[in-house]
Amino acid sequence: MTLSNIVANAPAALAVRLMACPSVTPATGAVFDALEAILTPLGFEVDRFIAGEAPDGPVENMIALRRNGDGPHFAFAGHLDVVPPGDGWASDAFAPEVRGDLLYGRGAVDMKGSIASFVAALEETRDLPGTVSLLITGDEEGAAVHGTRAIIERMKERGIAPDLCLVGEPTSVHRLGDMVKIGRRGSVNMWISVDGTQGHVAYPHLADNPIPRLVRILSAIEAIRLDEGNDWFQPSNIEITDISVGNEATNVIPAQARARISIRFNDMHTGAELEQRLRALVESEGGRLEAKISGESFLTPPGALSALVSGAIEQVTGLTPELSTTGGTSDARFLSALCPVVEFGLCNATMHKLDEAVALADLDRLKEIYALILRRTLAA
Amino acid sequence: MTLSNIVANAPAALAVRLMACPSVTPATGAVFDALEAILTPLGFEVDRFIAGEAPDGPVENMIALRRNGDGPHFAFAGHLDVVPPGDGWASDAFAPEVRGDLLYGRGAVDMKGSIASFVAALEETRDLPGTVSLLITGDEEGAAVHGTRAIIERMKERGIAPDLCLVGEPTSVHRLGDMVKIGRRGSVNMWISVDGTQGHVAYPHLADNPIPRLVRILSAIEAIRLDEGNDWFQPSNIEITDISVGNEATNVIPAQARARISIRFNDMHTGAELEQRLRALVESEGGRLEAKISGESFLTPPGALSALVSGAIEQVTGLTPELSTTGGTSDARFLSALCPVVEFGLCNATMHKLDEAVALADLDRLKEIYALILRRTLAA
Repeated sequence: MTLSNIVANAPAALAVRLMACPSVTPATGAVFDALEAILTPLGFEVDRFIAGEAPDGPVENMIALRRNGDGPHFAFAGHLDVVPPGDGWASDAFAPEVRGDLLYGRGAVDMKGSIASFVAALEETRDLPGTVSLLITGDEEGAAVHGTRAIIERMKERGIAPDLCLVGEPTSVHRLGDMVKIGRRGSVNMWISVDGTQGHVAYPHLADNPIPRLVRILSAIEAIRLDEGNDWFQPSNIEITDISVGNEATNVIPAQARARISIRFNDMHTGAELEQRLRALVESEGGRLEAKISGESFLTPPGALSALVSGAIEQVTGLTPELSTTGGTSDARFLSALCPVVEFGLCNATMHKLDEAVALADLDRLKEIYALILRRTLAA
Repeated sequence: MTLSNIVANAPAALAVRLMACPSVTPATGAVFDALEAILTPLGFEVDRFIAGEAPDGPVENMIALRRNGDGPHFAFAGHLDVVPPGDGWASDAFAPEVRGDLLYGRGAVDMKGSIASFVAALEETRDLPGTVSLLITGDEEGAAVHGTRAIIERMKERGIAPDLCLVGEPTSVHRLGDMVKIGRRGSVNMWISVDGTQGHVAYPHLADNPIPRLVRILSAIEAIRLDEGNDWFQPSNIEITDISVGNEATNVIPAQARARISIRFNDMHTGAELEQRLRALVESEGGRLEAKISGESFLTPPGALSALVSGAIEQVTGLTPELSTTGGTSDARFLSALCPVVEFGLCNATMHKLDEAVALADLDRLKEIYALILRRTLAA
């Protein structure tokens, strides 16, 4: 199959148009022009806006809305930005190419291919009643400060409130349909500093080595078991990711010692509670702590939405997806404040890697699954 | 008092001649020429030799010997190299200058002033029977690999064996004569490495974080109390002087963690025993350890030599010196293999600092103390 052959193949042809626009995070401009050009003929009202300034911006965002009388509002969320391609691709990362059964190019699975499948599904279902929207950001892979958060703010201002949301992140692992995400753990990084007084190792009584206090702090942190997990989450986890003293001189007691930890936590915790707990521990040894909460955990408990998505997957693929909360964070953590959210998309084996690729057959099947979800939601 | 006035003041005039020769460690050449020119007229046979190559050399060393028939052999040991002056001196560090009662310049107390006092004492005692020697290295402040150790080798080859040795390091603290060193702690540095497997913090089961193992090692090290000290030594001490992981990425579990420790140990331990003990601890957590023993501890138990030195100090200054083993290492650790060794010299308040200075009166009194020690030893 060549590029000219797949023009008739709706999701692949759409994916190629999006993948041909370089859009390393944060993305603006051409890739949004391409999507707008596809959506407008399908009856969408497209609202594009720029948010933020350097260093975390500017970021382009899009809210595309199609209202068709009364009925539920189903939102699809995703991002047009991609991670940098890196060196060593077999073909140009932004010149999509079909080799064998695969379509190669940055964003193939994460997640221009998924957006293309959703748009192709919308093409097939344009006569259904209700409202569908695409919430598309240009910054999911970067700081994500002016991306989906800005979209949510704008939706609130405009009074737009979806009833259900599907995020098209590549959640499948080995085969399309084997995993749906119904939640994500939260994430917080913390920086620990302990100050002392520099001196000569031969005269330790004249110095105050901060390292023993840092070691006591880190030992206490290592002894913490936050929880045992629950029905839908694995246990929360603390990793010490760095320690830094920066003392080159063998005969000098250093004046400062630092460490950094990363906590991935389930819905039994909040970032603020963890920050408070760790700060108390660090301050008991005279240290200081700074925390940056990247995202709270969220869970859409198994129910109508996950059953809807699982049912569509089973009908198209024959697989019963695992309902999972594993992995890193995603923009679903922001969207969960609006309505029930699940995530389902392509296989993630090649995401963020060289020669990212999607199976052409997967694009078609994903389109079928998305279309089935839309029919069952909007026709209900 | 000006420089021209102090020419008549033997130790100060000699000190000025040595201090005017820049001799940042490792030292060779001019400063040795100056000392040789002073010693030859005093009846010394001077043996100068170069030892070592880059990076720890070349180093110049001198064995100056004056034999006067039968009698004991009294050795004076010291160094002509100095630490770098650094920026911010009130006057040129290598243009000695008298201001008030003080003589300023790099090496004033550590230890060209002490060498000058010893040479002035030798001038006064040239008719005494026995053997006196000066064992002078150009590398005590640096790596000290090709300094006093090379002198000892050469003495062995030449069959030179002193009966007593006095090292002229600046041991006095507040007033000249308040402290004599009769021993020094040993010193060993150790480098600890723990390897793991890099990974993403969201998937800790796929990685192996080396930091928890390093923290356990360091906690165990912090819990060690090597000893409680003894009559002549303070307790041995372990300091953790550095920890380094070098992981900038907040979402990455690192592949390696390192730490460095410094142990100052008394005569209840050897460097090799400590290395073995710490290695066993580190290896029990799968880590690796490298050790570099800078020097073993030594002690010249209080006896004839310390009584001789203390008695001379008391007669000249009225002070009873404390017999101490505190502080860093010195070349006495090598010389102690030859014969009983004690260390006594000027006040160390300004050593290694900007505007290093010696009281002119201290140079005279130190000369008197050294002369008294020589008379009581050689006339005995």
